[in-house]
Amino acid sequence: MGNYNIATLAGDGIGPEVIKQGIKVLNQVGLNFGHKFRFDFAPVGATAIDQTGSPLPDDTLALCKRSDAIFFGAIGHPRFDNDPTATVRPEQGLLKLRKELGLYANLRPVAGYDELTHLSPLRPERMKGVDILVVRELTGGTYFGDKGRRDGGDTAYDTCVYSRHEIERILVVAFDAAAKRGKKLKLVDKANVMESSRLWREIMREMAPRYPEIEVSYMFVDNAAMQLIINPAQFDVIVTDNLFGDILSDASSVLAGSLGLLPSSSIGAEIGMFEPIHGSWPEGAGQDRANPIATILSAAMMLDHLGLVEEGDAIRQAVNETLASGVGTEDLNPKKQVGTDALGDLIVEAI
Amino acid sequence: MGNYNIATLAGDGIGPEVIKQGIKVLNQVGLNFGHKFRFDFAPVGATAIDQTGSPLPDDTLALCKRSDAIFFGAIGHPRFDNDPTATVRPEQGLLKLRKELGLYANLRPVAGYDELTHLSPLRPERMKGVDILVVRELTGGTYFGDKGRRDGGDTAYDTCVYSRHEIERILVVAFDAAAKRGKKLKLVDKANVMESSRLWREIMREMAPRYPEIEVSYMFVDNAAMQLIINPAQFDVIVTDNLFGDILSDASSVLAGSLGLLPSSSIGAEIGMFEPIHGSWPEGAGQDRANPIATILSAAMMLDHLGLVEEGDAIRQAVNETLASGVGTEDLNPKKQVGTDALGDLIVEAI
Ligand SMILES: CC(C)[C@H](C(=O)O)[C@@H](O)C(=O)O
Ligand SMILES: CC(C)[C@H](C(=O)O)[C@@H](O)C(=O)O
Repeated sequence: MGNYNIATLAGDGIGPEVIKQGIKVLNQVGLNFGHKFRFDFAPVGATAIDQTGSPLPDDTLALCKRSDAIFFGAIGHPRFDNDPTATVRPEQGLLKLRKELGLYANLRPVAGYDELTHLSPLRPERMKGVDILVVRELTGGTYFGDKGRRDGGDTAYDTCVYSRHEIERILVVAFDAAAKRGKKLKLVDKANVMESSRLWREIMREMAPRYPEIEVSYMFVDNAAMQLIINPAQFDVIVTDNLFGDILSDASSVLAGSLGLLPSSSIGAEIGMFEPIHGSWPEGAGQDRANPIATILSAAMMLDHLGLVEEGDAIRQAVNETLASGVGTEDLNPKKQVGTDALGDLIVEAI
Repeated sequence: MGNYNIATLAGDGIGPEVIKQGIKVLNQVGLNFGHKFRFDFAPVGATAIDQTGSPLPDDTLALCKRSDAIFFGAIGHPRFDNDPTATVRPEQGLLKLRKELGLYANLRPVAGYDELTHLSPLRPERMKGVDILVVRELTGGTYFGDKGRRDGGDTAYDTCVYSRHEIERILVVAFDAAAKRGKKLKLVDKANVMESSRLWREIMREMAPRYPEIEVSYMFVDNAAMQLIINPAQFDVIVTDNLFGDILSDASSVLAGSLGLLPSSSIGAEIGMFEPIHGSWPEGAGQDRANPIATILSAAMMLDHLGLVEEGDAIRQAVNETLASGVGTEDLNPKKQVGTDALGDLIVEAI
C-alpha cells in the first residue's frame, strides 16, 4: 500500500486519449492492491509550445523532478515536421527531459503475440519466438556531443562522444536486464570504423567476467539491421548507443505488426519515464481510434520500476486476456473491433 | 569496339570463384560485341595481408589507378573478426581504396525477382513492386572524420563531418539516378538531431528546383528503417550519408531474399569499382556453392559505367532468363540446383 505521485505529460495528438486509458487502468490496480496514484498534469511538446512558447516549460520539468514517475503520452505535430529548421521544436522538450532527468537508459521490449502474427510484415515462421529487448543509451553520443558549422556555414559536424562512466552505467542496466531474461547480451556497434564503438567493446569485455551467467556477443550495426529482418528470434538483449539505438529499436518495433502494442521505459538515477513508442498520430486524434495498449503496458513498466511487479503483471495478464478474446482497435484488425475508450474499459474489467 | 583494362581484385573467401564467373561472362560479352577486356589481378584484403602485410598493397592501388575499372570480389576473414582491435584489418584496404580513388558514391539497387519472392523474409504482398536504389555517400562522414581518445583513453569520440562540396556531388549522382528511374528522391537523415543532416537538407532544398521532374522528399533515419520493413515499395531512390547508408543499404538488401543476387557500384570522379554486396563467406570458399549472380550483375553495372549499356542489358537479360528457367545455386532454393561454375556457364550460354 503506497502513495505515488505521477507526473502526467499527455502531450500532443492522441497522447491525451491513450494516457486517459492508462490512468483508468492504474486506478483499477490501485483499488485492487490498495495503492493511491495521484496524477499531476503538465504540458509538453507542441501543446506546450502553443501555451508557453517552450516545448518543456520550467513548471513541467519541476513537476517531473518532484514526482515518483513520469507517465508520458506522445509529442509532435506536422506543423513542425514540414519545417525541420524551426528553432523551437516539440522534440527538444523530449531531449531536454531525458538529459535533465538523467534518463540514460531506454528499454524497448518487442515480443510477438501469437494471436497477432498475421499483422507482422515478416512471414509468420520468422516471428516465432521473437522476444527482444533493446537497451538504448539515451543521454550521450551524437545527440548531445559538440555540433556546429565551420567555413561560413558550408561545413557541418556532429560529434559522437562517450565516456567510460556513461558506457559502464548503461552496460550495467543491460547486463541486469539480460540476467532477468534469456541471459544473452549483444553489443551492437561499428567497431570496425568508430573509436567510440571500440571503447564500448573494451568496457564490455572488461565487465563480462563479472556476469559469468550472461552470454556476451558483438555485432556490427549494419549486420544487426539485416539480422533483425532475417532472423529476429536470435536476439535476446541488444545494447547499443543512442543513435544506433534510435534506428534499431524502431526497426525492431515494426516486427510485431503494430506500434500500438509496444511500451517503453526510460530510466536513470532516480525517476523513470514511461511512454508508448508510437507517435502523436495527429490525424487520428480525438476520434477514439488509437490503440491504448502501448500506453497501458507502459503503465505496467512503471509499476515494475516502482517495485510493484505483481501489479505490473496484473496489467500484462489483463492485456493478454483481452487480446486473446479477439477484441482490439482497428490497427490490430481484430475479430471484434472497438474504440480506444472501450478497449481501455475491457482491460480495466479484466484486471 | 574497345579495349578495357580491368583491375581485378578477387580478395578473400569465395571472392576468386565468383569473380571467375564474372570474367567468363565479360569475355562472352566481348566476343559478341567485339570488345576486349584485359584482366589484371592484384591482391586485397586478408589475402594481401598474408602476402604483403598490407590489406591494400601499393602495387594494387597503382594498378587500380591506371585501369579503366575495378572488378572486386569480397574481403574478410574470421581470424580478424574475432579480434576487432587488430591494428591491420582487411576492411582498411577497402576504406583506403574508396578514399584514394575518390569513390564517393555507392549505388545499391535492390529489386525483387518475381520467381524468388518466396525467399524474402517479408510477406509476398509487401515485396510487390519493390525497386529501390540506395545511393550512399562513401568517402565522408563518421568514417573519415577526426576520431580518437581523451582522458587517458577513457573518453572516445568520432566526428561526422560533411562539406557543401561533398554533399553536392553525391546529390548530383542521386538526382541523375532518380531521373533515369522512378523520378522520386528521398533524403534520409536525422535532421531533428544532427547539424550535418541539416546541411544536407539545406543543400537538397537548394538543388531541387534544378530538377523539376524529380519529386523530392525527406525522412528521418529511424522512420526509414521502419518503412523499409513495413512498406519497401514506397521507395525509389534513397540518398543518405556514409553511416546511415551502411545500415540502410544492408537492411534493404535482405528484402530480396538472397544477398547472392545483389550488385553494387562505387563511383566517383574517374574510375569505378564494381562488387557483389555479399561478403567473403570463408566457410563456403572453394566448394562451388557460392552464388555468382551478384558478381555477374556487378559486371553489368561496370559495363553501364563504361558506356556499354546495351552490353550491360545483355547480361541482365541472360540472368533473368536463367533465373526464370528455375536454375540457381543453393541459396535460391531453386527447382534445379547447380554449382557456382555451372550457373556461370548457363548465364554465358544465355548471352
Ligand atoms: C524525436 C527524436 C528526437 C527522438 C530520438 O531520435 O531520440 C525519437 O525518434 C525517439 O526515438 O524517441
Ligand atoms: C567493412 C566495412 C568497413 C564496410 C563499411 O562499413 O563501409 C562494409 O560494411 C560495407 O558496407 O562496405
